[in-house]
Amino acid sequence: MTYCVGLRLNKGLVFMSDTRTNAGVDNFSVTRKMFTWDVPGERVITLMTSGNLATTQSLVSLLEERSKITTERSPSILELPTMFQIARLVGSTLREVISDSHTEGQQASSKFKASVIVGGQIKGGAPTMFLIYPEGNFIEITEDNPFFQIGEAKYGKPILVRAYDPDMSFEDAVKLLIVSFDSTIKANLSVGLPLDLHVYFQDSFVATARPRIEVDDAYYQAVSSSWGDALRNALAQLPSYNID
Amino acid sequence: MTYCVGLRLNKGLVFMSDTRTNAGVDNFSVTRKMFTWDVPGERVITLMTSGNLATTQSLVSLLEERSKITTERSPSILELPTMFQIARLVGSTLREVISDSHTEGQQASSKFKASVIVGGQIKGGAPTMFLIYPEGNFIEITEDNPFFQIGEAKYGKPILVRAYDPDMSFEDAVKLLIVSFDSTIKANLSVGLPLDLHVYFQDSFVATARPRIEVDDAYYQAVSSSWGDALRNALAQLPSYNID
Repeated sequence: MTYCVGLRLNKGLVFMSDTRTNAGVDNFSVTRKMFTWDVPGERVITLMTSGNLATTQSLVSLLEERSKITTERSPSILELPTMFQIARLVGSTLREVISDSHTEGQQASSKFKASVIVGGQIKGGAPTMFLIYPEGNFIEITEDNPFFQIGEAKYGKPILVRAYDPDMSFEDAVKLLIVSFDSTIKANLSVGLPLDLHVYFQDSFVATARPRIEVDDAYYQAVSSSWGDALRNALAQLPSYNID
Repeated sequence: MTYCVGLRLNKGLVFMSDTRTNAGVDNFSVTRKMFTWDVPGERVITLMTSGNLATTQSLVSLLEERSKITTERSPSILELPTMFQIARLVGSTLREVISDSHTEGQQASSKFKASVIVGGQIKGGAPTMFLIYPEGNFIEITEDNPFFQIGEAKYGKPILVRAYDPDMSFEDAVKLLIVSFDSTIKANLSVGLPLDLHVYFQDSFVATARPRIEVDDAYYQAVSSSWGDALRNALAQLPSYNID
């Protein structure tokens, strides 16, 4: 499995993904699930993937290749005019990859499925984000639904529901995401460090550094170890149940 | 779905279950998923169920009936000498109900599956708990694995992993469970109030009152509304992430 979250804040967008991929429990490795394309000053687009690794790698390679080979450049992720059209392109490419896997040759019991979060900003439009289903259709982020999760989403959802605030700073949003990821990692072997992070500042049209948070990252370790104490303190503040 | 948790503390056992049952989202109702049998001074046994409602109701009815009809009384949940044998009885009865549903008649696409937590204490033994799978086999609670969850277990697991302590009081354990249930209820429509609670005091061999925590329960509302603030305060205490 996988865990990826995309948040929309008033100040911009935040993306975080884990990097564990596994087939069973005896075959696991580190793989990047976050990819960014940019045309500085004009557009920044970040994509995160969950699901069958062969499918998601093909998807990213096709998007990548079509952005480079001139004859295949139209439509390209670097040229389409709006984020909505980017989402349509990613959706149709994803559908193409999945249906290609189904046509002939050996059949697999799993479905080659994958889900994608794609977000960013193109000059002339607002920053936005889409959740793309294996069927190629998609939904857009809204005020009522200001974050998307793919993969092992359940463990880390309650803290997002409780603590997300559109006015929060990027620093606080990353802290919140690290707590959400840490809750998931502590409860499920199929999600693991390192984590990839991308913070996009609204109207900057520049892809900032995308740090990788490693297993021994001092900040991650500090949050992970103090969050247990902070939670126990928070519980202690609540009124006690009265047993007759 | 369902959410049920059984905890073993040094002071005894705590059981909590929700009461929502649904087939799709347009057909839902309240049903009891927690059942207790006792022989005061000798044994207290509590059982919680998750899964196909026809299966779990048959299971409970069979256990109930066989504890009452003299000719069918052996083996009975009221007479077996150890908790291990109780778990074997529940497991074999569950397997019997599920395989009965499969033999003839209309086929269903779902599997009539169910999982069960059964725990309690019988004079001469320690309090213990078992998690019983649809196949009828089971595992026992241990120090390393001191709680069982069935149903929608993921949302409410991180807080249990972080805050469970075998030395905690019953009052604190109930508070912890309410937070775990509230996190689940806020994130998933298939788990809902009211909640059933049973606290068993080690070596008491008496089934205490099993309160039902209703939707408008003042304590539940207080914990639910103050937990959001407590979490946000806990997050605020953590060090901030530094964005370059």
